Amino acid sequence: MSQPLDLLVLGNAIVDLIAHADDAFLADQGVAKGAMQLIDEARAEALFSVMGPATVVSGGSGANTAVGAALLGAKTGFVGKVRDDELGRLFSHDLKATGVSFETAPAAEGPATARCFILVTPDGERTMNTYLGACQKLSFDDVDEAAVRAARVTYLEGYLWDPPAAKDAFRKAVGIAHGAGNAVALTLSDAFCVDRYRDEFLGLIREGSIDILFANIGELQSLYSTDDPDKAIAALRDERGGHGKHLLGLVTRSADGALVVRGGEVRSVEASPVREVVDTTGAGDLFAAGFLAGHARGLDYVASARLGALAAAEVIEHIGARPQRDLLALAREQRLI
Amino acid sequence: MSQPLDLLVLGNAIVDLIAHADDAFLADQGVAKGAMQLIDEARAEALFSVMGPATVVSGGSGANTAVGAALLGAKTGFVGKVRDDELGRLFSHDLKATGVSFETAPAAEGPATARCFILVTPDGERTMNTYLGACQKLSFDDVDEAAVRAARVTYLEGYLWDPPAAKDAFRKAVGIAHGAGNAVALTLSDAFCVDRYRDEFLGLIREGSIDILFANIGELQSLYSTDDPDKAIAALRDERGGHGKHLLGLVTRSADGALVVRGGEVRSVEASPVREVVDTTGAGDLFAAGFLAGHARGLDYVASARLGALAAAEVIEHIGARPQRDLLALAREQRLI
Repeated sequence: MSQPLDLLVLGNAIVDLIAHADDAFLADQGVAKGAMQLIDEARAEALFSVMGPATVVSGGSGANTAVGAALLGAKTGFVGKVRDDELGRLFSHDLKATGVSFETAPAAEGPATARCFILVTPDGERTMNTYLGACQKLSFDDVDEAAVRAARVTYLEGYLWDPPAAKDAFRKAVGIAHGAGNAVALTLSDAFCVDRYRDEFLGLIREGSIDILFANIGELQSLYSTDDPDKAIAALRDERGGHGKHLLGLVTRSADGALVVRGGEVRSVEASPVREVVDTTGAGDLFAAGFLAGHARGLDYVASARLGALAAAEVIEHIGARPQRDLLALAREQRLI
Repeated sequence: MSQPLDLLVLGNAIVDLIAHADDAFLADQGVAKGAMQLIDEARAEALFSVMGPATVVSGGSGANTAVGAALLGAKTGFVGKVRDDELGRLFSHDLKATGVSFETAPAAEGPATARCFILVTPDGERTMNTYLGACQKLSFDDVDEAAVRAARVTYLEGYLWDPPAAKDAFRKAVGIAHGAGNAVALTLSDAFCVDRYRDEFLGLIREGSIDILFANIGELQSLYSTDDPDKAIAALRDERGGHGKHLLGLVTRSADGALVVRGGEVRSVEASPVREVVDTTGAGDLFAAGFLAGHARGLDYVASARLGALAAAEVIEHIGARPQRDLLALAREQRLI
């Protein structure tokens, strides 16, 4: 029987290769600043050969969230696909070393473990170029029914819509979770990702597949096809979800903090102070981690969002999307838990 | 014909896997804090499985020096052996991306690219566990005569005494460099390394094979088998070298700065201010980088040592032994160049 979990995350299993770059380099390489762009293997080789020296750390949006939540005390599991290669072993090690359970079998053949070439500009903004590699092998069979049934919240990446077979895994997890009376969370991941799958994401929300929605304001505007952030927030506020359930929305707005949107109400939470913006990679992922860990501890939504803001601030202050400081100790210092 | 170089570095080609750990973990794993310990493949697997999440960055003492010198404007080359695997490609990429020429053919078979498991304690001290892997394949034939002849300074790691065939490469490089009227520099690398090869290192110095010696105070005390730092400095000051040449000694003393020892004289240089000691990995390597880059620019020894202190301070402030800030810009801001 599976151990009870506070959180089970389904996501793309990716190792990040992070390098500094300037805006001219981004322009030269034809990449859209701040976004996530999918690239093939040839493009991955070409980009690697011209980018600067790299810091390699495990990443993947959902996996970052899993690690952050585990570090904040939530019992957490992860489902995602690596290859049985060096980067795959690094990814797997890094999850387990932070206490995240990770049982998905690595692919024994096919493409290498996914890598994301992240270019960090002097303003701390990150621009991502993802080669999905082995993530494309994540499938229906990788979702363990007992694990989903045992998890109070199942958290899904919007990015899972990119690899072809992963959306079957996604839908299977939603069905099992709701069948067991558990909650399903979705992050919209990226404004361009939303642009690729807008109708499907709106469909998931309106059919009642999603109980908790994470988005930054740009992604939310993309979802509702509007340039006006207030209109996007109003649209989310009025979203009814399926079966008359209230949708819980968490909207991050960079330095302007986050909004908790629920049952027609919008409450605001300030951003945590950041000493120096070094690399914003993973800020949204860690906001979700803090929120979900707070939720698992029984904190109310606003207090959970404050924990999210704290975790987001920590990863902004250094290279890489995995926390380097003791998040639990930080949260206690600030009397958030 | 080889391009003229300011600096050619021979060293172990190593990728670092850096994790946080506390003193209890070090004790539990039986590793000597602050030192470099050689481990075999089985021990590498075992240590990796219990250590915390890792940040992966290219390392290797001499390679760190090569990168730092190149970033400070010195024309630099590196000789060292990787395997043709993922970490080997990362190592090679990171050198070339900083402008270091690196032509040594990777090993097509045999052990994997070397890795160093670095445990960083809360005080910022680093403790290293090195699996030498493909470094053991560096041999006499990997030293290109034309490249050594073309380099004003050839810089050698004391660590090269560890892999069996590398000392042949080392001695070959010394012979070619001196035959061409170029200088040879040696770093003592590590106090335990000195303990393993004390007589050979003293022999190299006294036979006149070494023109410039880098050491931290602990390594120097190990060289002269004394607990008294002043006695070690006095012994270095009185060292005559071969053929009546003066030996130039650079001795680093952590927060107490560095000493320039030459022709019976000892001059002191202050440490550069460090905002926060995060990870001391590479501090000595970058001191050597700054010194050698200053020397190549025609700065005097004391001014070169100040540049070394600046470069060392930069790498102490973040995880990893490769500079993250623009060293040239920093040096200009502080009017060191």
